[in-house]
Amino acid sequence: MSSVSEPLAHQIIDAIRSVIGSDKAALHEPRFKGNEWQYVKDCLDSTFVSTVGKYVGLFEHELASYTGAKHAVAVANGTAALHIALELAGVSEGDEVLVPALTFIATANAVSYCGAIPHFVDSVHDTLGMAVGPLRDYLQHISEQSNGHCINKSTGKVIRAMVPMHTFGHMADLDGLLAIARDFNIALIEDAAESLGSTYQGKHSGTFGMMGTLSFNGNKTITTGGGGAILTNDSEIAQRAKHLTTTAKVPHRWAFIHDEVGYNYRMPNLNAALGCAQLEQLPVFLASKRQLYASYAKAFEGMTGVSLMKEPTGSHSNYWLQTIMLSKPDVEVRDAVLQATNDSGIMTRPSWTLMHRLKPYQACPRAPLPVSEDLEQQIINIPSSAFLV
Amino acid sequence: MSSVSEPLAHQIIDAIRSVIGSDKAALHEPRFKGNEWQYVKDCLDSTFVSTVGKYVGLFEHELASYTGAKHAVAVANGTAALHIALELAGVSEGDEVLVPALTFIATANAVSYCGAIPHFVDSVHDTLGMAVGPLRDYLQHISEQSNGHCINKSTGKVIRAMVPMHTFGHMADLDGLLAIARDFNIALIEDAAESLGSTYQGKHSGTFGMMGTLSFNGNKTITTGGGGAILTNDSEIAQRAKHLTTTAKVPHRWAFIHDEVGYNYRMPNLNAALGCAQLEQLPVFLASKRQLYASYAKAFEGMTGVSLMKEPTGSHSNYWLQTIMLSKPDVEVRDAVLQATNDSGIMTRPSWTLMHRLKPYQACPRAPLPVSEDLEQQIINIPSSAFLV
Repeated sequence: MSSVSEPLAHQIIDAIRSVIGSDKAALHEPRFKGNEWQYVKDCLDSTFVSTVGKYVGLFEHELASYTGAKHAVAVANGTAALHIALELAGVSEGDEVLVPALTFIATANAVSYCGAIPHFVDSVHDTLGMAVGPLRDYLQHISEQSNGHCINKSTGKVIRAMVPMHTFGHMADLDGLLAIARDFNIALIEDAAESLGSTYQGKHSGTFGMMGTLSFNGNKTITTGGGGAILTNDSEIAQRAKHLTTTAKVPHRWAFIHDEVGYNYRMPNLNAALGCAQLEQLPVFLASKRQLYASYAKAFEGMTGVSLMKEPTGSHSNYWLQTIMLSKPDVEVRDAVLQATNDSGIMTRPSWTLMHRLKPYQACPRAPLPVSEDLEQQIINIPSSAFLV
Repeated sequence: MSSVSEPLAHQIIDAIRSVIGSDKAALHEPRFKGNEWQYVKDCLDSTFVSTVGKYVGLFEHELASYTGAKHAVAVANGTAALHIALELAGVSEGDEVLVPALTFIATANAVSYCGAIPHFVDSVHDTLGMAVGPLRDYLQHISEQSNGHCINKSTGKVIRAMVPMHTFGHMADLDGLLAIARDFNIALIEDAAESLGSTYQGKHSGTFGMMGTLSFNGNKTITTGGGGAILTNDSEIAQRAKHLTTTAKVPHRWAFIHDEVGYNYRMPNLNAALGCAQLEQLPVFLASKRQLYASYAKAFEGMTGVSLMKEPTGSHSNYWLQTIMLSKPDVEVRDAVLQATNDSGIMTRPSWTLMHRLKPYQACPRAPLPVSEDLEQQIINIPSSAFLV
């Protein structure tokens, strides 16, 4: 550990310990203290653990009701949700899709699955989401409109969609991004994998664009083991999403007719049973995570060299992953803190490696990424489980 | 119902009822009478329901041990298994892959996901699997060898792989198919989605080709809710399969490095817990399904116009789906039988619609399919759950 970072690392460990105590702490663990076993057992007893059974429909209904989306379609995971959402937005072979460089690789991979090319754009400090001003300037500079499509002038390809991701549960600047989507004829799909329970101006994440996608992976605010969902207010899109994610089989009493190339992306009933119970617990988890934020805020108050990430003005974060931010981008200090915290039993992690640095995406088009490049060296996620306070 | 088919339908209903009694019967239902509760509860109690936890590794170990494959990689479902197996066999954009016309659409879809084109071939009556003689003749006629590749002379494309599927659990003629694969330089991947527990000359299905793929969907012999696996004897392929199905993340204590476009295809630990318990029950299920076959065989013995499908010589079937076969292809008789049986509470179903008749695959290349076209009008699956006798 460098001499500069050593005191900082110790201060950080002390601050975290003052909140969570002396036990080992994972980054994010689920909790099953509600009806989880009851519903899962009921599902096993019914023998309907797979493609048929009441819990998938129930989970979809409860998700729609909770988020305020007209429809929710449960699927195998967040990546599958994003893949199908992009396909339904018309993203296909050779299109470009605007994706933040600062995201989990699933956002970019879903674009690849459509045969399309992710085009990376910058983020801002206050939301950790897509930067609005720079994106508008960039698009004005690099694109032109043709027949109602946004064309990248240098590649000749259609920029078909944009996928703002709500980083660690903090809402991106949707007003600004929706205006860009409208002005430049680009479909907007929210990657709300991390933001179940987060709202922007009182409205739930994932309900602003053409579609929004959720994830219920084990490290998320609620989990179904593995799972995801597509949110939409458009009934036709919802129907198409259900059809495409269930092998595109046309309903019939016995005949096997599939009218397009579909996917085996449905959520098994067993996993939906777990989801129903978890969703009941969500308000408790959110309150608890908000309290954890408040405790961390007190612990990190006034510390030099590092600050705790606060929800952006006008939005309400689920505080999925609590985030401390080094005041100055410094990969050595960051790694020293990661090393010291993990060594002492406090699980922490850095930002994802920026997408344009990863081998499969190095050749993709990208905007200037100065803020993302700073954030990559500033962000450290600290233990965030709901039950830590 | 036509006057010809009416007596036959009644005879069939009587024969089935003589075996399964007077209750309503589904086509195939799972049974959870072993350690299913215990393992699933233990998984919930551990909170490791998702990407981490002991059951995935255990399930893979037990699968490898049961099948005799050196490696088993558990994934989200059988379609995902096939997709990754094809990708690892080198199938890519513009390749052709030999697929039986008589199969579930997942076999063809997995080829499509690779950007490749399914090329449909015929099946035979005695195995319901790929026809060896006609395939050899066909390839001799339509293909040529070039640089160690099999080229379709009329399309100029490489025929990269073949995917024999073991229909309803009956083993295809692997000796003949492996010889074709060798002679024509085509990778062989077994779609063993339906044949867990089936062996060919004493060796388990899915362990003959470069890879084999399994499915644990709710209607299969054992279920994990949704799930699948890749079997292989090649350690490098197994490692690649695990890597590709877990987002191609390079192991590191905290850093997020992904070295290629991977997939979120892992099996959640919750589903693997169910799988471990189900696998323990497999021998009992297989014995029971074999007994069900014997009872049906007695009930259908000597009936005119229909016969019960028996396991091919030299192989041992899991009898996943019991199959009656109309002596003469006749879609009207078939539909009359389907109508009458389903109306009387006995769930039955026809063969899948042949792949080349489905809208997404009508334009694909294909061999003559006379036997498949007959089988499509002859096959009727009848109730097959392990606990029916």
